[in-house]
Parts: sequence; C-alpha cells; structure tokens
Amino acid sequence: MNQKNCMVAQSGGPTAAINASLCGVIEGVAASEHYDTVYGSLNGITGILNDRILDLTELMSENPDYMDRLARTPAMFLGSCRCRLPDYLDDDSPYVSVFRQFERYDIGAFFYIGGNDSMDTVLKLSEYGRKIGSPVRVIGIPKTIDNDLCETDHTPGFGSAAKYIAASLLEIAHDTFIYAVNSVTIVEIMGRDAGWLTAAAALARNEYNTAPHLIYLPEVIFDPEDFLLDVKRLLYERNNVIVAVSEGIRDADGNYISASEQTHDTFGHSQLSGVGKTLEFLVKEKLGVKVRSVEINVLQRCAAHLASRTDLDEAAALGRKAVALAGEGVTASMVTIRRTSNAPYTVTYGHAEIRHIANEAKSIPPEWISPAGNDVTQPLVDYLTPLIQGESNVTYENGLPVYMDVSHLAKHP
Amino acid sequence: MNQKNCMVAQSGGPTAAINASLCGVIEGVAASEHYDTVYGSLNGITGILNDRILDLTELMSENPDYMDRLARTPAMFLGSCRCRLPDYLDDDSPYVSVFRQFERYDIGAFFYIGGNDSMDTVLKLSEYGRKIGSPVRVIGIPKTIDNDLCETDHTPGFGSAAKYIAASLLEIAHDTFIYAVNSVTIVEIMGRDAGWLTAAAALARNEYNTAPHLIYLPEVIFDPEDFLLDVKRLLYERNNVIVAVSEGIRDADGNYISASEQTHDTFGHSQLSGVGKTLEFLVKEKLGVKVRSVEINVLQRCAAHLASRTDLDEAAALGRKAVALAGEGVTASMVTIRRTSNAPYTVTYGHAEIRHIANEAKSIPPEWISPAGNDVTQPLVDYLTPLIQGESNVTYENGLPVYMDVSHLAKHP
Repeated sequence: MNQKNCMVAQSGGPTAAINASLCGVIEGVAASEHYDTVYGSLNGITGILNDRILDLTELMSENPDYMDRLARTPAMFLGSCRCRLPDYLDDDSPYVSVFRQFERYDIGAFFYIGGNDSMDTVLKLSEYGRKIGSPVRVIGIPKTIDNDLCETDHTPGFGSAAKYIAASLLEIAHDTFIYAVNSVTIVEIMGRDAGWLTAAAALARNEYNTAPHLIYLPEVIFDPEDFLLDVKRLLYERNNVIVAVSEGIRDADGNYISASEQTHDTFGHSQLSGVGKTLEFLVKEKLGVKVRSVEINVLQRCAAHLASRTDLDEAAALGRKAVALAGEGVTASMVTIRRTSNAPYTVTYGHAEIRHIANEAKSIPPEWISPAGNDVTQPLVDYLTPLIQGESNVTYENGLPVYMDVSHLAKHP
Repeated sequence: MNQKNCMVAQSGGPTAAINASLCGVIEGVAASEHYDTVYGSLNGITGILNDRILDLTELMSENPDYMDRLARTPAMFLGSCRCRLPDYLDDDSPYVSVFRQFERYDIGAFFYIGGNDSMDTVLKLSEYGRKIGSPVRVIGIPKTIDNDLCETDHTPGFGSAAKYIAASLLEIAHDTFIYAVNSVTIVEIMGRDAGWLTAAAALARNEYNTAPHLIYLPEVIFDPEDFLLDVKRLLYERNNVIVAVSEGIRDADGNYISASEQTHDTFGHSQLSGVGKTLEFLVKEKLGVKVRSVEINVLQRCAAHLASRTDLDEAAALGRKAVALAGEGVTASMVTIRRTSNAPYTVTYGHAEIRHIANEAKSIPPEWISPAGNDVTQPLVDYLTPLIQGESNVTYENGLPVYMDVSHLAKHP
C-alpha cells in the first residue's frame, strides 16, 4: 500500500495535556498501516504557510526518552497561533497555500489540536477541501482547560487544570486556617464564559476542609448584596471564609464585576483590576474584616508537574483515535470522549461532525448549581472527581521537572 | 532521672517546611533521655496564655502514618499568631502567665519555630526567664521563606519556596514561548526587603531556557528608564522576554514601585496595584508590546506538593538538634545551619545566641548581584542550587495531596 504522510499542529491557549495528544498522534502514525511520517507545523497553521515544519517521526527516533518527556511537557511543543482563517469565498489564498503544502509533503491527514477557534479552522479547511475534492482528511483533537466544547463529555487539559485548582485551594486553605482571627480569602479562577474550572475548586473539600465555602460561577448573575450577606453569615460560624470566584462573573446588567474606572499609578498610567481585587475591596469596605485575594494565574494551565494521569492518558488516546479514524476515511470531524460509567469511571472514544462543534460553547447546566447560586451540587462533584485522578510520572533533574527542549520555537532569523 | 516535658509552638507566616521542624522536635523528644511528653501550643504563644494545648506525643502515637504526613503538610499544624510581646519592664503580665503555664505542664524546654518576629519572642522570653531564675530552656528554630535570618547559612522553608518559584518560572516560560509575536511577561515574587526568593527564579534556566531574562531585587535601586531599555534591547534578540521582579523594589527616593494613587472600581472603592501590574502598564504604554503580569501568590509558601526534600530534611534535623541542645543546657539561642561544602553539598547544625539574630535581617551581598543590577551572578546560583534538590514523598488520595487534618484550628466556642 502506498503510504501517505500526516501533518499535525497545535493552536489556542496552553494546557498541560496538549502534548500528550501530540504523542498520541505520533504513536498512532507509527502504528498505522496507512501513514508513514508525521510532520509538525510550528505555530499552528501559520507553520504550514511559512514552511516551518518539523519531522516528528525522525525527532522522536533520536532519543527513546523523548515520547515520555513530550507527553508531560506543558504548553505547545509545536507552538501556537491565534489565527482565524477568512471565509474562503472572500479570500481563498491561505487555503490554496495550505493545500499546496499538503500536496508537497504528500499529506493524507491533518490533525489540529485545539479549542473552539481551532475547531473553526478544522471546519473551514474541511469545507474547502471538500470543495476542491482534496483527499486530505481533516480531524480536530479537542483541548481546552475551559471544558466548554460540545459533543464531548469533557476536554483534555481540563482535568489537569482542575487538579491544579483543587490542590491549590486545599493548600491555600491550610495557609488560611492558621490565624485565629476573622478573615476572608477570595480566589479568582479562569473561565470567562463557563464555570467548569471554578467549580473544580469544590474538589478541595475533604473530611476536615469545607473550603471553598462559597462558589460563584459566570452561569449565575452576581449580586454584590447577596455575596456580602453570604460572607457575613459564614463569618459567624467560622474564622476563615474562602471564596472561589470565576473571572467571568457579571451583574444583572451583564457587566463584568471588575474595576470599571481608571486610576493612575507611580508612572501615571491607567489601571484596571480583576474580580478578585474588586471583591477584596468590597469586603474590606463593607464588612471591615481582614481580606485578601489570590489569583490562580497561568499556572492553572501550565503546571504540568501536577497534571492528572487520567487527563494525560485520555489526551493521548484521542490522538491515537484521530489517526485511526483518518485511516478509516473519517474527515470534517472532532474526536470525542463519551463517559460510559461514573463508578467505576469508564469512557469510549468516538467522533462528531465538526459543524456541530465549531463556534458552540457548553455551560454548566442549572441543575448542577445550588439553588442559591453560590455553590455546586453533588452531581457536578461526581462528574468532576474522576477527571483529576492519578498523577503524572514527572522526572526531576537538579530539583526541577524535566520537560522537552522548546528552543525550536525561538525567534528565527 | 526525673524527666521534664517540652512545649513547642509555631509563629509568623506559613512555609512548606515548618511542620517538618515540628516533627523533628517530636522525634527529638521521643529519643531524649531528658524529656517525656511534648505539648503543642495552638496559635503561637497565645495558646499558652489561653490554655489551648495539644498533647503531641499522644496524638502522634494514634496513627503510624501521622509523622510522615505531618512533615509534608504545609503551613502551621499548630496554627500561628502575629503577636509581639511587650517589654517585660513595661508589662510583665504575659510573661507571668507563660511561665506559670510552663510550671503547670512541668516544662523543661520551650521551642519556638518562626521567623524574625518569633525570634524576638525567644529573646524576650529567655531574658525574662533568666531574670526570674527559671530553669526552662528557650530555643528558636528558624523558619522563613524570606531567607533573611542572620547567623544561619539559610532558613528552612526557603528551599521549598525557591523550588516552587523556579519550577513555576520554567512552566511560565513554556507557556510564554508558544507565540511567535513579541511579548513581555512580568513575574512578581514575594520578598519585601530581601531578594533571595526573586533570585531563585534564576534556577529555572537550563540548556534551552534562558528565562528569566531580567531579575530586579529590592537590594538595587529600581530605575524605570533602565528597565525599559533592558526590555527593549532584549526584544530585538528574542520574541518573549520574561522578567522576575521582587514585590519590594523601590526607586531612588525609597518609594515602592506600585500604584500610588487611587482609583474607583465597580463599587466605587479605591484600589492599589502591586509592582507586577505597575510594570505591566509601564511596558504597555512605553513600548506598545503585548505584556502581562503574573503574581506568584501565596502558593510559593504553601505548595507543599512541590517541597524540596533537602529543605524538609534540614527542617526536621534542626528540630531534633534543638531538643538535643536543650538537653545539654543550651538556652537563649537559635539553632543554625552551617554549610561546610557546596559540591558535594554538606552542612552541620549548630546554634547561635538569640541576641545576635532577633530583629536583624540578611540581604543579598552586592557581589552576588550583576554590575548592571538586573541579574544575579553565578556564586548566588551556586549557593541556591543545593537548596531545591530532591522531592517530597507526597501521597495522593482521590487525586489530591494527603495532608494532616487541621480542624483543631477551627473556631472554638
């Protein structure tokens, strides 16, 4: 059989599991009777356009440790881009270039690992491909810490971020419980439109820790008066109140809860503050209690040393599944996870048509949010729990995690 | 021999290693021929005053796993306080109460695990004890992520915080390198007066990662013009510039680099911003480049899942050493670490008089800072490297690290 090659690229924001999917694709190609070599395009589809292409099959044969190391390296080994293709009816020039490159590299299948915007690219490339009668199969592999893609039970990258958030909340709880004076801690978590990541804070609760004591999601209208009453009530019962809040909460008028006016710092610049700082100042002013805010920063998406084993394994399995499906002739699709049982946790891998996924978003269903809108319900906890199970087999050298060399992403002349 | 008992308490800010020192004290007492039971005072010395005392010898005998679990639990198992004793010449009432409790519990030695303020308490208690002719030995056990205590090569808690900071910087570098457009990332690190923690960011550098590309310490006057020139120069060479900056940097007039004027948020409150946000806005305005700031938050002092083995081992050794010294009659002292060799790294444990330590602080020596004041030198890297070696043997259950139950710190009726 005349074997074709594959091309793979990564796009969107970083996760701790996106390279595990890349490993899955490399493994899938190595095991496939349909495909020979897998090429990686640097910085998403722009690498195809600029001909910045790595031979991944060759690279991975250089060192037997590379596959393992790659799977646990955070962010994109191939780099990313924030590139939205134009409608090909308006401007087909990038499409012409991409498919010319596919021909040049004798590509039979293209895999794009990414989130919502990347699935839009998968949709557009597959539509254009169909129009020109290209035999190249185009398949999306989901990846987003936000867990907001449709047609899949959850998305790779989410479980690791959820694990990091839950562990951080638990450690912040230990940090907070030490003082015998009233205090409020506001923890700001990513997720502009969907509250999945903020909800994961609930996993920090155990037999001795009831924090976070309040959870505010973007799915619920945020009322500052209700919030202050919630905090005040809890301060009667306990010294330390810990609040998990999504960066994306909004008031009844749809405005984000954040600093809306301008200030001037040392150098005379205007500044804006996020929701954590804003609620910190609200509590300080209205309740007069010791308060601090903590922003769980970019580490929630790149702290690969605390990745979820379940997440890494599923991400890799989806990469392999995408290659297998392409070999069977599937195109214009995204690979998906279907949960077949919660206890014991089991999943199967499948695929869905990309046109049902691109440009859609999945929020937390109302029944998984407490009636008061300040917590999550047990079914949501049951949904989340399996996703953070197991640990990454991190190797440490000289005191730090060992990741893949990414110097190929450095500025090129 | 008539065995006396011991009392131990913890004070100041959290670290990942402070409970390892507590374990060392418990082990030391168990192995001692001088001492019988070790009592833990809750919330620093205030627990002695309020009679909130745990029998640690009994508690640890309940479960064979407790010692291991305690050693890797972050923050204070016994809780903390921010309590500065008055001069006993002005008001001796707390002193009278404390030494009355020592008699009641038949205490022969008191150990206080903490930082600068706690060593002030050790000094005052030992001076008062000497005045009244008390036989109770009073010994401080150092603990601070700031590494700013004198008379000891370094302080327990620092190595774990340094490891967390270096690992975070490396992961942020991976997160940053993925985009092929110019960007600046400002990473704000704790340390108001000494730059040891910020300097630890340099440990993230390896064969492929040169970040952080600039390091600004509180030991050096910060000049915004020089900073902008530094960043601009680096942006010619590379796409992504990562800057590590101490929260405590100041300008030539001694003013902290932070928002100095007031703003109004959604709810009409005034807000202040830290150095990270301030430099972010400076870069955005003056260089017009994509820029973000990341605050390495309280997790740098409580992320016990990434503690340094070296740090935990030394913290425990100092706890045991303190008990041994008390048995030999030493008092009014703090246990210390002396580095006897850098490669291989070896240390010995000793003690120093508390009057040389309390209320003093140790900064980074000028020769360990680059002449341009925007980086550290190799000898500082060599000093730091051994302190982050080795990992904590974290146990995970249900996806999260297993720590000691701290519900005894909850509000009491």
